[in-house]
Amino acid sequence: MTRYRLNIEYDGTFFRGWQMQPDAPTVQEEIERALTTLFGGREIRIMGSGRTDTGVHAVGQVAHAELPEDRDPGKLLRGLEGQLPEGVRVWRVEPVGEEFHARFDARERQYAYRILKRPNSFLGRYGWLVPYPVKMEQIIDATPLLLGKYNFRPFSTRPDDEESTDCELRTLEWREDRFGWVLHLAADRYLRRMVRTLVGTLVEIGGGRREVETLQTLLSQGIGRAGVPAPPQGLALMRVRYDIDDAEDSPEPSLWGEFS
Amino acid sequence: MTRYRLNIEYDGTFFRGWQMQPDAPTVQEEIERALTTLFGGREIRIMGSGRTDTGVHAVGQVAHAELPEDRDPGKLLRGLEGQLPEGVRVWRVEPVGEEFHARFDARERQYAYRILKRPNSFLGRYGWLVPYPVKMEQIIDATPLLLGKYNFRPFSTRPDDEESTDCELRTLEWREDRFGWVLHLAADRYLRRMVRTLVGTLVEIGGGRREVETLQTLLSQGIGRAGVPAPPQGLALMRVRYDIDDAEDSPEPSLWGEFS
Repeated sequence: MTRYRLNIEYDGTFFRGWQMQPDAPTVQEEIERALTTLFGGREIRIMGSGRTDTGVHAVGQVAHAELPEDRDPGKLLRGLEGQLPEGVRVWRVEPVGEEFHARFDARERQYAYRILKRPNSFLGRYGWLVPYPVKMEQIIDATPLLLGKYNFRPFSTRPDDEESTDCELRTLEWREDRFGWVLHLAADRYLRRMVRTLVGTLVEIGGGRREVETLQTLLSQGIGRAGVPAPPQGLALMRVRYDIDDAEDSPEPSLWGEFS
Repeated sequence: MTRYRLNIEYDGTFFRGWQMQPDAPTVQEEIERALTTLFGGREIRIMGSGRTDTGVHAVGQVAHAELPEDRDPGKLLRGLEGQLPEGVRVWRVEPVGEEFHARFDARERQYAYRILKRPNSFLGRYGWLVPYPVKMEQIIDATPLLLGKYNFRPFSTRPDDEESTDCELRTLEWREDRFGWVLHLAADRYLRRMVRTLVGTLVEIGGGRREVETLQTLLSQGIGRAGVPAPPQGLALMRVRYDIDDAEDSPEPSLWGEFS
């Protein structure tokens, strides 16, 4: 048995999330099925760094798998390419030590959320066109308030499922391009729906539907109601960082732009 | 009756071309149906600048329509937005003179073709991943040979349907971005499958499957066999130029443009 790390990208449009439903195709299932075929029917399970909701995309999801025998990583990659359906791709396979755990060893997770400037027939499934006017300057101004370690309980849909509701947001940066704006985030961990709820709350501020002070109250006192979560199709899991990262572990070029 | 010019973008993945099949959804039909609904069931037909094949995209297709009564362009735009399905969008509506004809008045048509550097779960439907190794320098070097006015008969699948097989290629420019290379083309007109056949022929040269001299023979003598057409999903109709163009007629930002 050898443990491998897989770097994965997927178009969330086509799947019911990473691992959500027992009766709908998930990314995890597709990869497990492909690996099982490549290893002659021997059942193989994989462990992801974390789940993503239905409709959420990934450029740099990470998983580990216990494979029944050593295989050349290049051959494994090509084999997976031949087995996986459109919209999901393993772009790197590396042998790792037996102690590596995709979920427990992750020390940082990076996400990106795209807001569209105008309707777009090609990017509509990869961004959010806010259905009311928003002032981006107000959103950009309010964003740094979220930086730091806080109890993000009000920003989770199921806070009681979590061991802790403390998260440390380390990066929050809006980048403009010709399609709109992309928020790049990095944190040690996130609660359920947290990124989408953060974006939804910021957009309500930019739309004049919420005072910026409510954000401060939510963060400092855990009191009040956060915004409606932004829709899933704007969100992508960009990268998961580990102590064993190397240069080739950088995410592939993507519609959400580069992440430094 | 007032004549209007429509600027249109569509994701060719979802349609059987602009106007191809009597028994499958086409972009033309969708727009005609939407306009017919907006005008209380009065049948409205539109005339496009030219057809696009199944799977080919458009950022700046142009059509004209005779509407039974004057309408405010902004209201028409919003009305169409509410009626059109995902993947097709009218992004500009302008009243024009009765003499304007979207097809006969077009003096230049611009296309773009994307070649992907590597597999991509998001851009696979908007570019071509050539299934064998190619040297881009050889493709870039051979490209200017196509510039000018030639008999492009060998590059058409149905040359006998055409009144003339002479076309003038005015622009041919490869631009590299982080996903690959995009060829931008401008010409007065094109023959059936011509752009895809030009790209296919160039790629065969870059792949060492064809000598560059065969391209010269094809162009100067109309002798020989051109390459296999490149697949449709890499191609987009970017813009159609008329004498009455104005600044707002520029194409919307798109996946075939530059990525910063």
